[in-house]
Amino acid sequence: MATINDIGVAAAINIVTAIAFLIAFAILRIQPVNDRVYFPKWYLKGLRSSSIQTGGFGSKFINLDFRSYVRFLNWMPEALKMPEPELVDHAGLDSVVYLRIYLLGLKIFFPIACVAFTAMVPVNWTNKGLDRLKHSNLTYSDIDKLSLSNIPNGSASRFWVHLCMAYVITFWTCFMLKREYQNIALMRLQFLANDQMRPNQFTVLVRNIPTDPHESICELVEHFFKVNHPDQYLTFQAVHDATKLSELVKTRKQMQNLLDYNNNKHMRTLSKRPVIKMGFLGCCGEEADGIKYYTSMVESLTREISEEKERLRTGTKSIVPAAFVSFKSRWGAAICAQTQQSRDPTEWITEWAAEPRDIYYDNLALPYVDLKLRRIIVAVAYFFLTFFFMIPIAFVQSLANIEGIEKAFPFLKPLIEVRLLKSIIQGFLPGIALKIFLLFLPRILMQMSKFEGFVSTSSLERRSASRFYMFQFINVFLGSIVTGTAFQQLNSFLNQSANDIPKTIGVSIPMKATFFITYIMVDGWAGVAGEILRLKPLIIYHLKNTFLVRTENDREEATDPGTIGFNTAVSPILLPFIIVFFGLAYVVYRHQVINVYNQKYESAGKFWPDVHRRVLTALIVSQLLLMGLLNTKQAPKSTPLLLVLPVLTIGFHMHCKGRYQPAFVTYSLQEAMVKDTLERTREPNLNLKAFFRNAYAHPEFRVGENLEKEMAVEKPHTTPELVATKRGSWRNTSLPSKHSCPA
Amino acid sequence: MATINDIGVAAAINIVTAIAFLIAFAILRIQPVNDRVYFPKWYLKGLRSSSIQTGGFGSKFINLDFRSYVRFLNWMPEALKMPEPELVDHAGLDSVVYLRIYLLGLKIFFPIACVAFTAMVPVNWTNKGLDRLKHSNLTYSDIDKLSLSNIPNGSASRFWVHLCMAYVITFWTCFMLKREYQNIALMRLQFLANDQMRPNQFTVLVRNIPTDPHESICELVEHFFKVNHPDQYLTFQAVHDATKLSELVKTRKQMQNLLDYNNNKHMRTLSKRPVIKMGFLGCCGEEADGIKYYTSMVESLTREISEEKERLRTGTKSIVPAAFVSFKSRWGAAICAQTQQSRDPTEWITEWAAEPRDIYYDNLALPYVDLKLRRIIVAVAYFFLTFFFMIPIAFVQSLANIEGIEKAFPFLKPLIEVRLLKSIIQGFLPGIALKIFLLFLPRILMQMSKFEGFVSTSSLERRSASRFYMFQFINVFLGSIVTGTAFQQLNSFLNQSANDIPKTIGVSIPMKATFFITYIMVDGWAGVAGEILRLKPLIIYHLKNTFLVRTENDREEATDPGTIGFNTAVSPILLPFIIVFFGLAYVVYRHQVINVYNQKYESAGKFWPDVHRRVLTALIVSQLLLMGLLNTKQAPKSTPLLLVLPVLTIGFHMHCKGRYQPAFVTYSLQEAMVKDTLERTREPNLNLKAFFRNAYAHPEFRVGENLEKEMAVEKPHTTPELVATKRGSWRNTSLPSKHSCPA
Repeated sequence: MATINDIGVAAAINIVTAIAFLIAFAILRIQPVNDRVYFPKWYLKGLRSSSIQTGGFGSKFINLDFRSYVRFLNWMPEALKMPEPELVDHAGLDSVVYLRIYLLGLKIFFPIACVAFTAMVPVNWTNKGLDRLKHSNLTYSDIDKLSLSNIPNGSASRFWVHLCMAYVITFWTCFMLKREYQNIALMRLQFLANDQMRPNQFTVLVRNIPTDPHESICELVEHFFKVNHPDQYLTFQAVHDATKLSELVKTRKQMQNLLDYNNNKHMRTLSKRPVIKMGFLGCCGEEADGIKYYTSMVESLTREISEEKERLRTGTKSIVPAAFVSFKSRWGAAICAQTQQSRDPTEWITEWAAEPRDIYYDNLALPYVDLKLRRIIVAVAYFFLTFFFMIPIAFVQSLANIEGIEKAFPFLKPLIEVRLLKSIIQGFLPGIALKIFLLFLPRILMQMSKFEGFVSTSSLERRSASRFYMFQFINVFLGSIVTGTAFQQLNSFLNQSANDIPKTIGVSIPMKATFFITYIMVDGWAGVAGEILRLKPLIIYHLKNTFLVRTENDREEATDPGTIGFNTAVSPILLPFIIVFFGLAYVVYRHQVINVYNQKYESAGKFWPDVHRRVLTALIVSQLLLMGLLNTKQAPKSTPLLLVLPVLTIGFHMHCKGRYQPAFVTYSLQEAMVKDTLERTREPNLNLKAFFRNAYAHPEFRVGENLEKEMAVEKPHTTPELVATKRGSWRNTSLPSKHSCPA
Repeated sequence: MATINDIGVAAAINIVTAIAFLIAFAILRIQPVNDRVYFPKWYLKGLRSSSIQTGGFGSKFINLDFRSYVRFLNWMPEALKMPEPELVDHAGLDSVVYLRIYLLGLKIFFPIACVAFTAMVPVNWTNKGLDRLKHSNLTYSDIDKLSLSNIPNGSASRFWVHLCMAYVITFWTCFMLKREYQNIALMRLQFLANDQMRPNQFTVLVRNIPTDPHESICELVEHFFKVNHPDQYLTFQAVHDATKLSELVKTRKQMQNLLDYNNNKHMRTLSKRPVIKMGFLGCCGEEADGIKYYTSMVESLTREISEEKERLRTGTKSIVPAAFVSFKSRWGAAICAQTQQSRDPTEWITEWAAEPRDIYYDNLALPYVDLKLRRIIVAVAYFFLTFFFMIPIAFVQSLANIEGIEKAFPFLKPLIEVRLLKSIIQGFLPGIALKIFLLFLPRILMQMSKFEGFVSTSSLERRSASRFYMFQFINVFLGSIVTGTAFQQLNSFLNQSANDIPKTIGVSIPMKATFFITYIMVDGWAGVAGEILRLKPLIIYHLKNTFLVRTENDREEATDPGTIGFNTAVSPILLPFIIVFFGLAYVVYRHQVINVYNQKYESAGKFWPDVHRRVLTALIVSQLLLMGLLNTKQAPKSTPLLLVLPVLTIGFHMHCKGRYQPAFVTYSLQEAMVKDTLERTREPNLNLKAFFRNAYAHPEFRVGENLEKEMAVEKPHTTPELVATKRGSWRNTSLPSKHSCPA
C-alpha cells in the first residue's frame, strides 16, 4: 500500500499540474486571439463582437500589455463578484443551482473536516491495532494508521468517538441538505413566478393519440380537447415526421459551406477558378468547376427542400400520433398536464411540454408498447454495461499498488523500486486508468437514454446523469472496495479459516482511502483545473481557424460553448479529501458559467431532487460500511445505535421528498391562477393564438421558411417578443433551437 | 419429519372436521330459529321479515319438514346459481372481486397441479438422493421423496424438468393474472360508469387548511376554491370535532336501552315496578325506581345533546382544518382531487372524498407533521411487532415435529409414540398454534392503521391487509423456512464444515412442505368450513336471544352480519395443496356473500392491485428459492436461466401496473365529462346544492337532528333519491353510516 510519502508525491504532482493549468489559463485568456474560446458567451449574447485590443501590430493576436500579466489571477475574484440574482439573469437558474452543489459540498465538508481532524485523527493514530496484525500477510501503510483499521478490537471507548462522529456527520449533512432543498425550492418557485410568458407554460404534449378510421389525427385532437376541456382548449400543433427534411437541410448546409469555401478561394486567387475532383473523397476522378458544381447542388437541394416542405404541409401522412396542445391559461394547461385524460391509460398521455428548444423531436412518435419495450431493453443493456465494465476496473485496481505488481511480475521489481517512479505509479495509475474508462461512458449512456424514448434534452441528460451516478457508485465505489480488497487480500483469505474473512474485510476497507485520495486528486484537482483551460475547444478552435475554417458561418460554430456536463458532473459520491476540490470547482465553474457556457435549455433547477437523493445515498452507504466495520471490530454493542442512523436518514429523505419535491414536479393550481390573473390584468387583449402559431413546429420545418435568414450569420438576438419582464435569461424563448432563426 | 401416514391422518381429521361443519351447517341453516344468523342479509335488505315457517307447533323454532333434510347439501348449487351481474347488484362489486380471488386461485393451480403430478412426481420419486444422505443426521420422510430434495446432485436432465416447470408456472400464472387484471379493471370502469349519482363523485376532501388570523376556516375554504376553481366550485361542508357529541349520543343510547328493558320488565310483571341499585355495577348501593331513573337520565342527556349540537352549529371553535368541497361537475372534482392546489405541498391537500358511510371522521383533523410522525412511529412499531412475533413462532416451529420434541424432552417419548396421538400432534400442532397467534393480529394492525391517520374505512382495511400479508410473509413463510430449518438441522450444521451449510439448507427447504400442508389444511379446509357455520355469531345470537336480548333494537344489532374480512383473507401466500381450499372457499364465500355479509362500503374492487402484487411477490420468492436450491444441488448451469424468471416477472408487474393500475387509482377527465354530459341531458334542472347539503356532516351530528327517527327500528330503505338507475347496490348512498337515518 501507498505510504504517506507516495501520497505526498502524488499530491505534489497533482498540485503542480493544477497550478500549471491555472497559470496557462491565466495567460491564455488575456490573449485576444483566444477570446472566442474563453469568452464565447459574451459573443453569443451580443455583448462583445470582437476581442478587446490594446493597439499596435500583433495586438490582434497577442496581448502586449504587460501590466495585465501582473494581475493574471484576478479572474478568480472576478468570477466570485457577480451576485447571485444577477447570475440567475445572466446564466439561468440551472447554472446557479449547479454551482450551489459545490457550495453545498464546502458547507458540509469543511466543518466535518475540522471536527474529524481534531477528534478522530488522534483517536486513531495513537493505537497499535495494525502493528498487531503484522504477523499476518495484510499489507498496510502509515496512512492507514489514520483510519479506523488501526483501532484494536474491542476498544470500546475509542469506538464511541467514531459512533458520535457518525451521528454528528449525519445530522450536519441532513441539516445542510434540508436548508439547501428549501432554498432551491424557493428559488425555483420565485423564478417560475417571475418568469416571462413562454409557450411551454400553456402547452401540453400529448402522445399516443389513438388511430381512428373516420378521423385524421388533427381532427381527433381538436375534437378530443374541445370536448374534454371545453373552456380552456385553444389550439394545437401537429408533429411532423421530418426526418427526410432534416437530412436534406443538413446536406444543403454542407454544400453551402463548400460553395462558400470555393468562392473564398476564388476571391483570393482571382485568376483561376477552383477545381474539384468528383471521385472518392475529392481526391481522384474527373475534374469540375467547384463553384458551378456546388451552386447547382445547393439549388437543387433548395428545390427538393421546398417540395418536401410542401408535402409535409399539405399531406397528413407524415403527421405522427403526437401533438402540442395549447390552452387559454396556465390553469387549463396545468390541469391537462397533471391528470389522466382517457379511460385507457395508454392513450392520450399528457405531460407538460418542455421548452421548444428543449424538445427532442425524434422520440415524439414512439407508441406506448415500444416505449415499454425500449425501457426494458435499455435496463438490461445498462445492467450488462455496468457489471461487465467491472472486469477491467477490477484488473486495474488489482494493479493499483506496487506490491501487487511486484508480486504479480517479480521481474519488474528493479524498475519499479526506483523511488520517484514508484510514487508516480502509486499516485496516478489507479486514478487515470479509471478516468479513461469513464471518459467514454457518458456518450454511451446518452445514446441509451435517447433510445429509451425521452422527449426532452433535459430529461435525457437527467436520466444519463443518474445512470452515470449508478455506474460510478457500483463500479468505482463498491467495485474498488470489494474487488480491490479481494485481489489484494486474496493471499490472506486463502490462508485463514472462513470465520476470519469478515474480520479481514473489515480491516481492509478503510485502507482503501489511499485509492480514493488519488482518484479525487486526479479527477477533482487536475480535472477541474483542466476544465477551465478548455484545452480541447482551444485546440479545435485554433485548428479550425488555421486549417479548416472556411466561412464566417463555420467560425460561429467552432465557438461551440458547450453546456455544463450535468450528466457527468453531478455525482458527489467520492467524499474524502475533497474540500479543495469543491472550492476549486466552485470558482472555476462560476467563471465558466459566467463567461463560457451557453445554456441549451432552462429546467429551473429540476435536477436538484436527484442531487439530494444521491448525497443521501452516499451517506447511507457510508453508515452501512461503518456498521459492518464496527461489527467486525467486535464492537457489537454499537450496531443497534448505528442501525438507527440509516433509518433516520431514510425518514429524513421521505420527509424532504414529501415537503419539497412537489415544487420540482408539479405546478400548483393556485400559482397558475395567480399568474393567469396577473397577466390578464396586465395585458387584457393578448392574442395567444398568434403566440403559439409556430412555437412547437419541428425546427427543420420552420428553418426552411425563409432561406435568407437561415443563411445569415447568427446575430445577437433582441429580447423576445411579448410581455418583456426584467428577466432576460430565456434568450431563445420562442425559438425551437439554436438552429432556428430570430422571428 | 412427518411420514405420509401422518399427513394422511391429519388430512383425515381435517376432512372429517370440515365435513362435520358442513353437515352441521346444512342442518342448522334450515332451522327457522337460526334464520337471522344464516340469512341476515335478506332481513337487512327488507326482503324477508320473519323466517319461513312450514306450519305446525314448534315450526317457529325447528324445521319439521323432513323432506328439506334430504336436500341438505343443495345450498352449494344454490350459492353457485346466481349469475355474476346479479351478484354485483346484490352484494356490490367488492364482494364479486373478492370471490374472483378464489376463482383465480383455482384457474392458476388446477392446471399447474395436473402438470406437476404427471411430470414432476415421477421425476422426483424415482431417485435415491435422500437415501444417500442417510448416513448424515438429516431427518426426512417418505413425503419428502416427492420433492426436489430427492434428486441427487448434478443430475442434469432431471433438473431440466424442474426448470421447464418453473417457466411453465411463471408464464401460466402471469397469463391468468393479466387476464384477470384486465377483466376486473373493465368491471370496475363499467361499474363506475353505470353507477348512480353519489355525493362522493362530486366531492373532494381537503385537509391541512392553513390558519389565517383574519379569516375563519369556512371563509378561507370558500375564498380559496372560489378563486382557484371559479367555474366549478359549488359548496363545502365543514368538519366538526364532534367527539363530545358522539359520547353523549352513545351514553343516551345505553340509557335508552336500559329504560326499554325496565319498561319491558314492568310490562311483564305489572304489579311491581323494577328496582335498580345505584352502586357499583348495579350490585349494591341504595335502591331506586328503574323507570323513573332512566327516564330522567335520557331526558337530561337529550337536553345536553341538543345544547352541544347548538354549540357546534353556531360556534366556529369546533371546526377542524378540513372540509368536504363539492363541485358542480365530476370533471371539476376530478381536477381538484388529482392536482396540487397550493404552492406549499403541505397545505390544502386534496383527495377524492370516500363515500359518506366510508369516512373515518376521527382522523380528518390531523395536521401534516402529525401524519408524518405517526407514519414513522407505526412503521417502527410494525417492524418490532413483525420481528419479535417471530420468537414464539420459531419456538412453536421447533416443536412442530415429533422427533424434535422427543429430542428435547426424552421423557415424553413413550407418550408421544402412541401412533394416533403422534399423528394428531404432527397434523394439528403447528397449524393451530400459528392460527392462534394470527387470530389476534388483525385487530392490532387495524389499531395501528387508525393511529396512522387514514381517513376512510376502506383505506384502513386495505392498509391492515397489506400489513397482515407482510407479516404472514415474513413470519409464517420465511420464518418457518429459516428458523424451522435452523432448529431442526442445527445438529447437522454443527457437525459439518462451513462450506456444506448452503447445501444442507438447500436440501431441507423443500422438506418443509409437510408443515405447509398441515397449515393449509387447518387454516384452509377446516377454517373455511367453520366460516360457513358462523359458530361465533350463532352462539352470540342465541345467547343474546335467551339471556340478553332486551329490546327489538338490540335484536337488530345482534344480527350483525359482519363484513368480509378483506384485511385477513386476502393473502394467497401459501401455495401448495390448496386447490381444495380454493374450491371450498369459493363456494362457501359465495354463499356468505349472497346470504350473510352486508357491505359497509363499496370501493369498486380497489384492492385488486394489492392482490395482484401479492401473487407476484409469492411467485418471485418461489423462483428465488428454486434458484438457491438448484444452486446448492450443483446445477449451476441453470442459474442464469432461472435468473431470467424474476426479471421477467418484475417486468410483467411493471407492465400491468402501467397498463391497468390507473383504472384503480385515477379518474380520467374523459369519463368524468361523459358522465357529466349524460346527466346534464337527462336532468337539466338538478339542484345539486340540496343534494350535498348534509351528505358529509358528522354522523352523530346528523343523527341527533330528529330523535324519533333515530329511535325507530331500522327499516328497509327505499332506493335512494335522484337519478335512480338500474343498479341498486349502494344501499346507503346518501347516508353517512349505518347509524344514520333514512332521508
